[in-house]
Amino acid sequence: MPARAAKAEAKSEAKSAVSGKRKPKTEAQDIDASAHVGLDGLALHVGYAVRRFQLWIFQDFIKTLATVDITPTQYSVLTVISANPGLTQMAVAKRLGIERARLVHLLNALEQRTLVKRAASKVDRRSHALHLTASGEASLRQFKLLAAEHERHVIEKIGKDNRERLLEILAPFR
Amino acid sequence: MPARAAKAEAKSEAKSAVSGKRKPKTEAQDIDASAHVGLDGLALHVGYAVRRFQLWIFQDFIKTLATVDITPTQYSVLTVISANPGLTQMAVAKRLGIERARLVHLLNALEQRTLVKRAASKVDRRSHALHLTASGEASLRQFKLLAAEHERHVIEKIGKDNRERLLEILAPFR
Repeated sequence: MPARAAKAEAKSEAKSAVSGKRKPKTEAQDIDASAHVGLDGLALHVGYAVRRFQLWIFQDFIKTLATVDITPTQYSVLTVISANPGLTQMAVAKRLGIERARLVHLLNALEQRTLVKRAASKVDRRSHALHLTASGEASLRQFKLLAAEHERHVIEKIGKDNRERLLEILAPFR
Repeated sequence: MPARAAKAEAKSEAKSAVSGKRKPKTEAQDIDASAHVGLDGLALHVGYAVRRFQLWIFQDFIKTLATVDITPTQYSVLTVISANPGLTQMAVAKRLGIERARLVHLLNALEQRTLVKRAASKVDRRSHALHLTASGEASLRQFKLLAAEHERHVIEKIGKDNRERLLEILAPFR
C-alpha cells in the first residue's frame, strides 16, 4: 500500500520537523553522539539530504512568521490568490499540488480570519472564485516582509550563490 | 501556535504528496489551466521549490520500493542500524531527526516484519540496542538495489551534474 505508507511517512516527517524537543542528555547519548553515527549509503541519496534541508527551511519559515501565525502552505495560497484574483479552488489546488479537501479546510481558516473571501464562480458553479479581502492584501504585504526575512536566513545558511543554484536546479518542479 | 501550525502543515503536505488523485477535467479547469496561474513571489522562495521537489522524490521512492513496502524513513532507519549495529533508539532518532515516539512505532513495525531486533542496551538500560536480523540484512541488500534504481530516476529527472551539485550544497544538512 504505497499511498498509505507515504501518508504515514509524511505525517511523521511533519512531527519531527517541528517537535524540536530535547530530552535531558544522558551518558548513553553522549557515547552515541551523532557525529559518530555513520550514514552509510544514505549520504549518497539526494532525497535524504533534501528532506533534512526541507525540514530546516520549514522550521525557519514557521518560526520567522510565528508572530502572524502563517504556515508555508497558507503563505503559498495567499500569494497565488493575490496574484490571480478570482481563481477557483480547483485551480489553486492543482497549481500548488495541495489536496482539494485540505485546501478547503485551509481556506475555511483563512476566511475566518477575514483574509480570504469566496464568491460564486462565474465559470464553474460548483467552485468558488477566490479573492483576498482588503485586510488580506494588507496582511499579505506584512507576511511578505517576514518571508523575505526568512529568505535572508536561507542565504545566511547556504550562501547566495548556492541559493541561486538551487533555484535554477529546482525550477522545473515549481 | 507555531508548533501546532507546523504539524498540521506537514500532515497536509503528506496528503498532497501521495494523493495523486485526478478529478475528471471540466471546462472551468481548462480555463484555469496551471500554466496560466502565476506564482508571483513564490517562485523566488527556495522553500517552495524544495518542497515541490521533495514531494516528487518522496513519491518516486515509495513507488520504486512499492513491491517491498518500504518508505524513505524506514529505509533510512534500516541503513543506519545496519551501518552502526547496537545503536540505541535515542541515537537513531537523534541522528535522523525522527521524533522518538514515531521511531518506536516505526521500529515496532520493522520488528514485526522480523527485519530488526531489539536487545537490552549495555550502555543504557532504559534504551534498546538495535540490530538487523539476518533476514533484515538480506532484505536491506534488496532494498538498496531498488533505492539505487530510484536514484537513477533522480538523475534522469535533474541530470547527473545537478544531482552532484545538490549533494554538495545540501551536505551540511545531512
